[in-house]
Amino acid sequence: MIYFNSDYNQGAHPEVLDALIKTNAEHTDGYGLDPHCENAANMIRELIGDESCAVHFMTGGTPCNITFAAAMLKPWQSVIAARTGHIYFHETGALEGTGHRIVTVEAPNGKLTPELIDAALEEYQDEHTPEPALCYISQPTELGTVYSKDELKAIHAKCRRHGLLLYIDGARLGAALTCRGSDADIRDIAALSDAFYIGGTKNGALFGEALVIRKSIDSGYFRHMIKRQCGMLAKGRLIGVQFEALLAGGENSLYYRIAAHSNAMAELLREGLKKHGVRFDGDSPTNQIFPILPAGVVGELKKDFFFYEWRREKDGMIPIRLVTSWGTERSEVEAFIEKLDELM
Amino acid sequence: MIYFNSDYNQGAHPEVLDALIKTNAEHTDGYGLDPHCENAANMIRELIGDESCAVHFMTGGTPCNITFAAAMLKPWQSVIAARTGHIYFHETGALEGTGHRIVTVEAPNGKLTPELIDAALEEYQDEHTPEPALCYISQPTELGTVYSKDELKAIHAKCRRHGLLLYIDGARLGAALTCRGSDADIRDIAALSDAFYIGGTKNGALFGEALVIRKSIDSGYFRHMIKRQCGMLAKGRLIGVQFEALLAGGENSLYYRIAAHSNAMAELLREGLKKHGVRFDGDSPTNQIFPILPAGVVGELKKDFFFYEWRREKDGMIPIRLVTSWGTERSEVEAFIEKLDELM
Amino acid sequence: MIYFNSDYNQGAHPEVLDALIKTNAEHTDGYGLDPHCENAANMIRELIGDESCAVHFMTGGTPCNITFAAAMLKPWQSVIAARTGHIYFHETGALEGTGHRIVTVEAPNGKLTPELIDAALEEYQDEHTPEPALCYISQPTELGTVYSKDELKAIHAKCRRHGLLLYIDGARLGAALTCRGSDADIRDIAALSDAFYIGGTKNGALFGEALVIRKSIDSGYFRHMIKRQCGMLAKGRLIGVQFEALLAGGENSLYYRIAAHSNAMAELLREGLKKHGVRFDGDSPTNQIFPILPAGVVGELKKDFFFYEWRREKDGMIPIRLVTSWGTERSEVEAFIEKLDELM
Amino acid sequence: MIYFNSDYNQGAHPEVLDALIKTNAEHTDGYGLDPHCENAANMIRELIGDESCAVHFMTGGTPCNITFAAAMLKPWQSVIAARTGHIYFHETGALEGTGHRIVTVEAPNGKLTPELIDAALEEYQDEHTPEPALCYISQPTELGTVYSKDELKAIHAKCRRHGLLLYIDGARLGAALTCRGSDADIRDIAALSDAFYIGGTKNGALFGEALVIRKSIDSGYFRHMIKRQCGMLAKGRLIGVQFEALLAGGENSLYYRIAAHSNAMAELLREGLKKHGVRFDGDSPTNQIFPILPAGVVGELKKDFFFYEWRREKDGMIPIRLVTSWGTERSEVEAFIEKLDELM
Repeated sequence: MIYFNSDYNQGAHPEVLDALIKTNAEHTDGYGLDPHCENAANMIRELIGDESCAVHFMTGGTPCNITFAAAMLKPWQSVIAARTGHIYFHETGALEGTGHRIVTVEAPNGKLTPELIDAALEEYQDEHTPEPALCYISQPTELGTVYSKDELKAIHAKCRRHGLLLYIDGARLGAALTCRGSDADIRDIAALSDAFYIGGTKNGALFGEALVIRKSIDSGYFRHMIKRQCGMLAKGRLIGVQFEALLAGGENSLYYRIAAHSNAMAELLREGLKKHGVRFDGDSPTNQIFPILPAGVVGELKKDFFFYEWRREKDGMIPIRLVTSWGTERSEVEAFIEKLDELM
Repeated sequence: MIYFNSDYNQGAHPEVLDALIKTNAEHTDGYGLDPHCENAANMIRELIGDESCAVHFMTGGTPCNITFAAAMLKPWQSVIAARTGHIYFHETGALEGTGHRIVTVEAPNGKLTPELIDAALEEYQDEHTPEPALCYISQPTELGTVYSKDELKAIHAKCRRHGLLLYIDGARLGAALTCRGSDADIRDIAALSDAFYIGGTKNGALFGEALVIRKSIDSGYFRHMIKRQCGMLAKGRLIGVQFEALLAGGENSLYYRIAAHSNAMAELLREGLKKHGVRFDGDSPTNQIFPILPAGVVGELKKDFFFYEWRREKDGMIPIRLVTSWGTERSEVEAFIEKLDELM
Repeated sequence: MIYFNSDYNQGAHPEVLDALIKTNAEHTDGYGLDPHCENAANMIRELIGDESCAVHFMTGGTPCNITFAAAMLKPWQSVIAARTGHIYFHETGALEGTGHRIVTVEAPNGKLTPELIDAALEEYQDEHTPEPALCYISQPTELGTVYSKDELKAIHAKCRRHGLLLYIDGARLGAALTCRGSDADIRDIAALSDAFYIGGTKNGALFGEALVIRKSIDSGYFRHMIKRQCGMLAKGRLIGVQFEALLAGGENSLYYRIAAHSNAMAELLREGLKKHGVRFDGDSPTNQIFPILPAGVVGELKKDFFFYEWRREKDGMIPIRLVTSWGTERSEVEAFIEKLDELM
Repeated sequence: MIYFNSDYNQGAHPEVLDALIKTNAEHTDGYGLDPHCENAANMIRELIGDESCAVHFMTGGTPCNITFAAAMLKPWQSVIAARTGHIYFHETGALEGTGHRIVTVEAPNGKLTPELIDAALEEYQDEHTPEPALCYISQPTELGTVYSKDELKAIHAKCRRHGLLLYIDGARLGAALTCRGSDADIRDIAALSDAFYIGGTKNGALFGEALVIRKSIDSGYFRHMIKRQCGMLAKGRLIGVQFEALLAGGENSLYYRIAAHSNAMAELLREGLKKHGVRFDGDSPTNQIFPILPAGVVGELKKDFFFYEWRREKDGMIPIRLVTSWGTERSEVEAFIEKLDELM
């Protein structure tokens, strides 16, 4: 069986694992108050060109999203997000669990726009509705699509104008930073947001994400919030160690190389599919693609390949999701295309 | 100035006020544990033909909606509602404040349907999304429209099939029970829901609503929840006294008569408007109507009448909201129509 | 039966009720945005000598306590209170319901002190414990005792030093302002707290309290919070009207006269009890007293008088609670003393 | 520098790390739905002799405590715990963050008793106080002390009698299972509780705990709750793999051997201290001990050894905390004792 089901179906990239092995016997303080976390945080500050920002290492993406939003919002405030956004669609109401509404908008291609933000703002009138205070987007989106630098600028400007914080979920940030046609680098991401995270789990780490918060909005009490939201790891250094391994070398680091590889593997799949005139849900240039295939073909592919059906069959066609990762080998992609060539 | 702005712009109906005056000097236990509340609860049980249900007197509609939902839902469960529903649109995220999502659907005329419930259910797949557990509707809706008995039956059946509780917000229940063409009586409301409330505030009381909960889902601990949600009134009897005054006589009671009067006044307004070919937002047969008038006419009317613009001007036309109440006098309605006749 | 069970066992003081009757037919805007609320707020501003503070009319004491604290606290912050404090002891965990801890201390006589605040602060070390941010006291306390001006000053200074907000629950504030030996007037209460409320429910109103918030900590969004916490009354003017009636005349107002009367009636009871060498739980100079009586005497008194046993019988003695109010008549007190004279 | 500061200052026990290395390249499903988690869960079921219980692998101890309690409690319900309990003292109000009160009692030695539970229950009277519904204890306690089987039976019986759930925090369960004088084995722990967890983080794992829930109270929806509380790990198998390594061999497993080693090292320290007549805070037989030493001695020891002062200096004496772990070597303990011998 060959796996295209997700980018978290294996352990860590071997170089990341090595870093954990090498540091295993060290004694350090707990809860992320150790030299590895400090060092990794500084590497991130250098990478994004902002010495002053706060960096917190978190156990996962949902903890980043929720802990940040819950720390920032007043009880009566709400979050604006695409209905396809992870914070709405795949976090079991964790944000509402902290007492806040997500005001959803229908976003084609999974991307927010200034116009969609306006639509969400229109629901707010006075004290009888929650006050929108934070805009949630992800780069890339849940559909694999990527915001251009100009699109981010427009959203950022819109948020500034309306006093909204802008948060970028970077679960697969590496994929967006390294895909064809992407023009927003990590300094842009930092400059055009109030907070964002660099996702480790889906780009080579065992687990762990690096949440970056602009100095001016950091209360200095965020660690209280991590603990209160059950997200503080006793052996917190584990995440610091992994990010040291991932980020050494900046834009030439393992982090960028893993992401570029994943994207390249997805690109190969895409080309193999396009050869047969296959259409796609969205136009993802990153490591998740959503080809729409005849049900019969899907059935045959499933015998050798593991992947998920993305939406229900309609008119005999099924959109599926193919995901590549650091562990995806070129031979696996070729096997898929070969099989496809036989079937179509 | 003549007021069509709301049905809560005056105090209580004089007969309700009289009941408060007459009982003012009595000594009773507090927190709703008094003979008036007990008596009013029994009157309601008789009216709906269900001796076993729990009745709680609440200070307002939002407290009813939120306290009930929060008492019933598990932390990971959500509520399905129309995006125009009061619980979403006019309660400042109070439900999310208790940790639960409202899954919204776009509902023409403000009314949920089995198909719209299906659409909301489709978002739920597994442990990565909240589990819908309660359906919120109001009778009449925020747009003044009314569910027929068959429509309620269909929604009720749908909810039963999917294990959803059905809750009916009855802020203006009287208006729905007494309007033209309405075929669902209060026994139907009780039989086709798991809980509902009989709204007092907008139908002649100073304040207060009677929340009715089907015996089989009443935990016996609901009073803990009322107190915890800050909704327990020290002089709780005040609501019991008012409902005694409103409901004495059952379907011939003051409650029904006030509602019928409000509807009749709105009907007169509607006819006066239709004479001029005026179109309406929605087809409300109850005491809220939404005529769409030329901006110039609206401007002139505002000199003598107080009402709210409902939505923004579009193509020179403005939908306004006119609301009638126990205090609306026929002469006031006639003055409005006269003025309209002059202007159009 | 004569009632000493509570100060909320009757309706409103007749003059308050009259105000409601006289204004009943007026048309006003809803939700507290009406001339009566505005006028009553200004009367309060004048009474306390602070033109700038925010005044919000609330439906009850628990709504005041919880809504204020929840609006002010960050998610990881806690409240310091006496374990006998109403916010801990009699609100069903409403504060915890908003996500915050109450750090309790054992307070003799129900009164916090700088030393007790220190004890509570000692529990806070770092991000592994909630950060205390608000001190809750009530004047008078749940045991009827009263803080002197010096005691309040010491607590206020302590709070300032540690960055704690100081909140004073004034459910029975009138009783504290008018009792023998009290030297903190309402200007002191305002000057020595960040927020407090003037209790109406237990001093002549049907219901309603006036929450006063120091300008510098008022976010301007408090009405969002009232609505979100289910505390906004549609006919909000009802509370404004009642406070107009209660407060007209400032320190000579009905509010002060009612409280002084209640205190005087309690004083008569106290003297009648002391004659027989009765001891008391606490040394309350206000309208709640806690005499400790032989079980047999309590049993006999219960035949003619309604009151609550405060704690369990111990060694044949039972502490009971006697409460007086605007409605308590001198003849009722005398009847109690007479009976006592017979029994002891 | 030699480390006695905590049992989470190194990485994983080498055998645990090996298991992670060996399985690193495997492809599995995410979120704990993999063969390793299934297998580890079955090993636990066999170990405790209960085939039917639910087992969930969690990222840490606080997530276990909070997610379980929040899933079980109704909004108006509270938890009873010792004021020294981890859930109160070291989780930044995470439980209150889910809306529930912790009713604390002063527990000598950190241990709850039926009498202390009674004291907590006494605070509950009616709908004006939260309803206690869950009793939280830890084995061993925060002070290293251990409940005997009879003590657990008495607490369990008390809880059953009052309808309270009994939850046992097993962050250091191994230490309690293997220490001198301990007579409650893991089957007793399972039989005498409604839920408990087997702590991995502090007994050889990188991170991860195994939460065990009695079948009859498992709703089947607990995974929704894990996700909603931000505790679901994408590569969930990491915890399963570690528990496979820790528990293979049941009571002869690595888990038991690590704990026994830690206890033995602490025992050596204790003996070395007792030789000098040193007194201890509490009488811990497990891997945390709290000797009380002269301030001067503490100062000298700090030059070579890293540990925390537990409470403030008093009369020249300072209670310190010494913790041992899988990584503590006999030579390190001997070095400490030697130094002590020099100093005292």
